[in-house]
Amino acid sequence: MSREARFRQIALELGYDFDGEIKVGGNYSPLVVHDDLAFVSGQIPRVGDTVVVQGAVGGDVSLAQGQLAAKVCIMRAVALLLRRFGSLDRIEKILSINVYVQSATGFTQQSEVSDGASEVLYTIFSEAGVHARTSVGVFQLPKNAPVEINLVAATA
Amino acid sequence: MSREARFRQIALELGYDFDGEIKVGGNYSPLVVHDDLAFVSGQIPRVGDTVVVQGAVGGDVSLAQGQLAAKVCIMRAVALLLRRFGSLDRIEKILSINVYVQSATGFTQQSEVSDGASEVLYTIFSEAGVHARTSVGVFQLPKNAPVEINLVAATA
Amino acid sequence: MSREARFRQIALELGYDFDGEIKVGGNYSPLVVHDDLAFVSGQIPRVGDTVVVQGAVGGDVSLAQGQLAAKVCIMRAVALLLRRFGSLDRIEKILSINVYVQSATGFTQQSEVSDGASEVLYTIFSEAGVHARTSVGVFQLPKNAPVEINLVAATA
Repeated sequence: MSREARFRQIALELGYDFDGEIKVGGNYSPLVVHDDLAFVSGQIPRVGDTVVVQGAVGGDVSLAQGQLAAKVCIMRAVALLLRRFGSLDRIEKILSINVYVQSATGFTQQSEVSDGASEVLYTIFSEAGVHARTSVGVFQLPKNAPVEINLVAATA
Repeated sequence: MSREARFRQIALELGYDFDGEIKVGGNYSPLVVHDDLAFVSGQIPRVGDTVVVQGAVGGDVSLAQGQLAAKVCIMRAVALLLRRFGSLDRIEKILSINVYVQSATGFTQQSEVSDGASEVLYTIFSEAGVHARTSVGVFQLPKNAPVEINLVAATA
Repeated sequence: MSREARFRQIALELGYDFDGEIKVGGNYSPLVVHDDLAFVSGQIPRVGDTVVVQGAVGGDVSLAQGQLAAKVCIMRAVALLLRRFGSLDRIEKILSINVYVQSATGFTQQSEVSDGASEVLYTIFSEAGVHARTSVGVFQLPKNAPVEINLVAATA
């Protein structure tokens, strides 16, 4: 199965459509490419106009919902790469992701939340999707998102 | 108008002077260059010895003051680039910024705070200033700063 | 004294052994190399199975303990580089580190915590260890770690 096919299968399993426009405001870009490096801006689990999960993980948001949110964030990042390069075969390597988890007091399973995103990357890209990762628990995120993820990839 | 002229005009509008020494402590550097990449350390809104805005945005600090703080942070980053390279024309592209907003409980407009920084970069560098961006709400920042911003740029 | 000798001397002073396996879970890697860039995943102060300092700095954890934790984090990062490249002489430059400090309410000395890590890098690598740095105070960290640090280095 191609990377795009695996991407579309995960979208189907999640029940979300990542083909729509990905909105950004302000004088920045969701994706900047320089030489063979692609920088993807922080993605929250927004589909269309809706942030599909909201709140703090370990509080209103369960670990499972946090993992789902992490999957949606990273699918948006992959959707941006696909849109820009036309094919996911242009991605040589996922280099690193930073995962920011809006955390309730005492919640320390940020790494487990991030596993949702890492699993998606590995499913789509196999070995090329194995990345460096940093997971931290933050106090608040834009639009009350439970997770925000950015990414740096190398392109071929 | 040149990039330096636009930089100086924004400094004038903000009412702050970015020509002084930018202090750093410890065994690190405010700016590291490798090949054509420039890494700027996290900047807080300090001018001389004073952090010009202090506190949590959405609490003691209003959104407008948070945006002002974001502008001062990014002006410091640009001042570091100018000092190092002698001319802002050496900057080929602003690649990415990370914006950390000290956030009061329930404050979710971190992206709007970041818009202050993105606007400055666009004003100075036009299209070359359009960057990838990640905005998160953190619990505390050094010296009670409301905003901290780091940056990666490509140089020509 | 060689870089490895200085690394081993610091390990001795800290009283911890960094020769064991560094565990990671999930579909990510503690270290990703692309061209001459090495990306080290976020490291917490874990030695073997134990997170050697736990809690929020400025609360249960003192500044001195936070600095110790920062040293252990960065020693793990250096241990990963040593294991991968066989010699620390392969490191041309430490480019940047991000330091996330689990912070108690009102704690604003995140930069002082980071100084522990910067000092280790300078001791081992001298000028090549002088890096860009970003220090922020986060709400929670994985496994209740007081500090988490990631790193980007250039290799020769």
